[in-house]
Amino acid sequence: MGKILEVDLTSGKTEATPIDPKLARKFIGAKGYGAKILMDRVAPGTPPLSPDNLLIVMTGPLTGTLAPSSGRFSVITKSPETGIFTDGHVGGYFGPKLKFAGFDGIVIKGSSEKPVYLRIRDESCEIVDAGDLWGKGVFETDEILKTRYPGTSCGIIGPAGENLANFACISFDCGRQAGRCGPGAVMGSKRLKAIVVEPGDKRPTYTHPDRFKKLVKDLNRSLHTHPNRIKRHVLGTLVCIWEGIDGGTLPIKNYSGIDFPQILNLVPEKLWEENIWAGTTTCYACPVSCTKVSVLKKGEYKGKKYEAPEYEPTVLFGSNCLIDSYEWVTYAHILCNDLGLDAMSAGNCAGFAMECYEKGLIKPGMELKFGDGEALIRFIKLMAYREGIGDLFSKGVRKAAEAIGNDSHRFAMHVKGLELAGVDTRASYGMALAFATADRGGCHQRVWVPRAELYGKLKRFSTEGRAEFVKYNQDERAACFSLDLCDFMPFSEDQFADLLTFSTGLEFTKEEYVLAGERIWNLTRLLAVREGISRKDDTLPPRVMEEPLPAGPAKGHFISKETLDTMLDEYYKLREWDENGIPTEKKLKELGLVD
Amino acid sequence: MGKILEVDLTSGKTEATPIDPKLARKFIGAKGYGAKILMDRVAPGTPPLSPDNLLIVMTGPLTGTLAPSSGRFSVITKSPETGIFTDGHVGGYFGPKLKFAGFDGIVIKGSSEKPVYLRIRDESCEIVDAGDLWGKGVFETDEILKTRYPGTSCGIIGPAGENLANFACISFDCGRQAGRCGPGAVMGSKRLKAIVVEPGDKRPTYTHPDRFKKLVKDLNRSLHTHPNRIKRHVLGTLVCIWEGIDGGTLPIKNYSGIDFPQILNLVPEKLWEENIWAGTTTCYACPVSCTKVSVLKKGEYKGKKYEAPEYEPTVLFGSNCLIDSYEWVTYAHILCNDLGLDAMSAGNCAGFAMECYEKGLIKPGMELKFGDGEALIRFIKLMAYREGIGDLFSKGVRKAAEAIGNDSHRFAMHVKGLELAGVDTRASYGMALAFATADRGGCHQRVWVPRAELYGKLKRFSTEGRAEFVKYNQDERAACFSLDLCDFMPFSEDQFADLLTFSTGLEFTKEEYVLAGERIWNLTRLLAVREGISRKDDTLPPRVMEEPLPAGPAKGHFISKETLDTMLDEYYKLREWDENGIPTEKKLKELGLVD
Repeated sequence: MGKILEVDLTSGKTEATPIDPKLARKFIGAKGYGAKILMDRVAPGTPPLSPDNLLIVMTGPLTGTLAPSSGRFSVITKSPETGIFTDGHVGGYFGPKLKFAGFDGIVIKGSSEKPVYLRIRDESCEIVDAGDLWGKGVFETDEILKTRYPGTSCGIIGPAGENLANFACISFDCGRQAGRCGPGAVMGSKRLKAIVVEPGDKRPTYTHPDRFKKLVKDLNRSLHTHPNRIKRHVLGTLVCIWEGIDGGTLPIKNYSGIDFPQILNLVPEKLWEENIWAGTTTCYACPVSCTKVSVLKKGEYKGKKYEAPEYEPTVLFGSNCLIDSYEWVTYAHILCNDLGLDAMSAGNCAGFAMECYEKGLIKPGMELKFGDGEALIRFIKLMAYREGIGDLFSKGVRKAAEAIGNDSHRFAMHVKGLELAGVDTRASYGMALAFATADRGGCHQRVWVPRAELYGKLKRFSTEGRAEFVKYNQDERAACFSLDLCDFMPFSEDQFADLLTFSTGLEFTKEEYVLAGERIWNLTRLLAVREGISRKDDTLPPRVMEEPLPAGPAKGHFISKETLDTMLDEYYKLREWDENGIPTEKKLKELGLVD
Repeated sequence: MGKILEVDLTSGKTEATPIDPKLARKFIGAKGYGAKILMDRVAPGTPPLSPDNLLIVMTGPLTGTLAPSSGRFSVITKSPETGIFTDGHVGGYFGPKLKFAGFDGIVIKGSSEKPVYLRIRDESCEIVDAGDLWGKGVFETDEILKTRYPGTSCGIIGPAGENLANFACISFDCGRQAGRCGPGAVMGSKRLKAIVVEPGDKRPTYTHPDRFKKLVKDLNRSLHTHPNRIKRHVLGTLVCIWEGIDGGTLPIKNYSGIDFPQILNLVPEKLWEENIWAGTTTCYACPVSCTKVSVLKKGEYKGKKYEAPEYEPTVLFGSNCLIDSYEWVTYAHILCNDLGLDAMSAGNCAGFAMECYEKGLIKPGMELKFGDGEALIRFIKLMAYREGIGDLFSKGVRKAAEAIGNDSHRFAMHVKGLELAGVDTRASYGMALAFATADRGGCHQRVWVPRAELYGKLKRFSTEGRAEFVKYNQDERAACFSLDLCDFMPFSEDQFADLLTFSTGLEFTKEEYVLAGERIWNLTRLLAVREGISRKDDTLPPRVMEEPLPAGPAKGHFISKETLDTMLDEYYKLREWDENGIPTEKKLKELGLVD
């Protein structure tokens, strides 16, 4: 669309600025373009919840096109939880609608005195008072806004974002989250309750429309009978539960990894058996259609359809809190979406809090036992509202452990302050390296290794090939997240590059596409380095590095310091970073990141 | 129990003969012991449906013990479909009950003039007139017999067995089949409608009861959280559908392998989604409990609970006949169990008949189109009753193709006369060798290779390591099927050997256990060789060897004659058989099969 909407909430001014084609060539869009804006316009040391931080909503060149899974866009900011760059990638319909309204992205700075929301339509933006919405949950707010502006798509914060919980998310159209690292708190610090995009008549154009359409047709056809598509469509992300059982990678009891035979009650098929499954839905232009829809039988959400559950909340609220029922897990998941809390960090925090409680390190003023679904629900609410014991844990496990002391950091499961995703990395050497080096902390989305290890691409329980696999896929994903397409498209780099070329006219070869990804990865590293991140932070929780897994298919394994160092050395070398994990001048020049 | 029940249906005499401990040491039990009886007492060239053929029901030393999955026993005979040895392994409760009545096995020879059944109880056997049961389906017969003799376990033939359909099965307690190769026809030729075993008070004894019990406890504990147990328990054998989708090994449209996106409707989860799943049940002493129970919504079986579906009938009636609904597939499956027809061969025959019909090679007097569930049901009934076009196909695809001519043998999917199991071997080099060399023809149970190829143990689309893998596992499985334990026990050879040692007192090391398996495998090969089987028969259908797979993850692959020859040469060499596939004198001496 060629334009970015700039919003200054302090002054109340909005304006459209042009996309810089040179930057688009170098950083593609979405993740890459957003990271570049953050680098140029947010000074190191800026407090994430200050008006000087930017909340950036960026589409990619493929968002809203005919390409499969092109519903994606990203939310970029400096995280209040980790203090470094974060990018959340969101599906659904918001991204395409933003383009249809005439904008490629929104850059929001400053802070409003009073609660407001943005009303975007037809190349314009209005800042509207949100006094009547402040304090409300996401679902109620969404309903009010959609009644007020029919056909809109809305990004909304809940009480967690308003209250600046460190891992507050932004819920888009209720079910799609910019979840991790607290973008909802940044939005809350700006007193921005929602972003509403009304239906528009602008459409992306293609420099090679016929070639683009033919390629899309071929890709859709190939997807139709592709095993991954079939599996994702039926099981959604819950397929990873089966892979986790096979590989012994599920997080169990705050990643302690004990035997948990009740996992039988959390295999995806139980969602059907328990009659919670109520359908499957899809994001914009997606032939996979992986999202499960559920109807609960109890609690405040009972009887209505909600998009849930996904793998990560299922295991983080489930096995990780020793809760073995889809009813409770899905309840917790939906509750987080409504309160605007990242369900992954919430599950990890709950597991950590339950272990602290079991060990007598905290006095939460409530029973907080592993396996107690009711306690979990109550605890989530306390975190979202930062009430009672919830206030402490709403800061995330790193800060909670600092306050609790008593060696609780040994089982505070985070990297760089971001609570780990649902993988016990002791059962996956590759995922250990992936978590240690992920650009936004303990994230599973930068590269997913367990499948390659389980199904023979990489030798299990070995450092062999891990650095290369992790580096290459981090780069390739960084490029893909700049397009911005979904993780689940099994396309080749050639096909991604062709999609980019045919739509933008910027000629990309496969190599240039992956190189752009490497450039973006180095850029996000620089964003971390300037905040003081180095090798010392590319590490894993003591539990992973010192306690052998007590049960399961990977029993006895752990990631020793030596193992991690071996992989890190190899990884830095491949990246041409120095041994402290700092990108070398030579590499940065080669990538065009310095002159 | 030390005793075998000998029944002569011609003379009407029954007697108990002792187990030969030397033979038990050499051939363990079940498969091995039964094969030895067949070798010694059924002369080469004996027509399978003549009174001179034996129908042998044999338990193994572990049947009815405390060992996990010890419900297993086997049915051994010379097959009317293949003309060679066959052994069917059956779970459920019949085997243990036979032991509890005082017998390790039953050897049935001769032929009754009038329909009869055997009533076995307390170390004795009565031959009872079955005039009132003849002509009835399995389910009705089972109900009558169980009302007459409460608490019994019954092996029953249906109309298919009475009518000597070449692939008639014996249904034990309705849901457990001695399915393949036509043991039901052998039983029918003897005019034996049923074998009824009444509850008894005998129990297997253990030479080392404490060690046995401790080992069983450990095994059960290890199974509890074993990934395979969890997967099998939830998905049953239907888990193989997912593996087939991943690997491109599903049989589609009579193994032609076209695109079949409707497979989405046959993934296991659809059984829940369609509300057909009605529970999960178990065989004797089995901690896995894999059997699905279904309730249909239409047809003569609607509204009642039946044990079904399993993987093989699901894909052979399903994708192989282009039928994409669990309702039809499960209906066909239950119908076969009731009529006493092997559901696997029935599905394969149906696919073959549908292709012949599509090509205009047969005039069945009915519409017999791929994808037509109603036609499938009608066709199954015609085969069981050998009426109309059903008579021709009740002989199996080999004989049907001989009669149809017109190059129909090119897509008659069998090996040695046994219809192939549900694997397109073009997508699995290892399974191609397994089918070509299986001792009862195109059987999947002797060794299962697709998982090893898909999940990294063996390099895909290569002959590398296939001979070794197939040979070793055929031997090991032959030993296990002599114990007789279920395919799904993920125990080590050491553990199997220990179970055998602690129960029988015959000391078996791991090596001796596998060696016994090799001895048994060579014995069954000799049973084939003496009927004229050699390398020329260790082959695959022309479709597999000449038509590249047109779609799916293994698109373009086929098993060329050169590929098969490479694997066969290596396999024979490892087996120390000559290049024609005949066991060498040296090998037979080494194994103690000749003096």
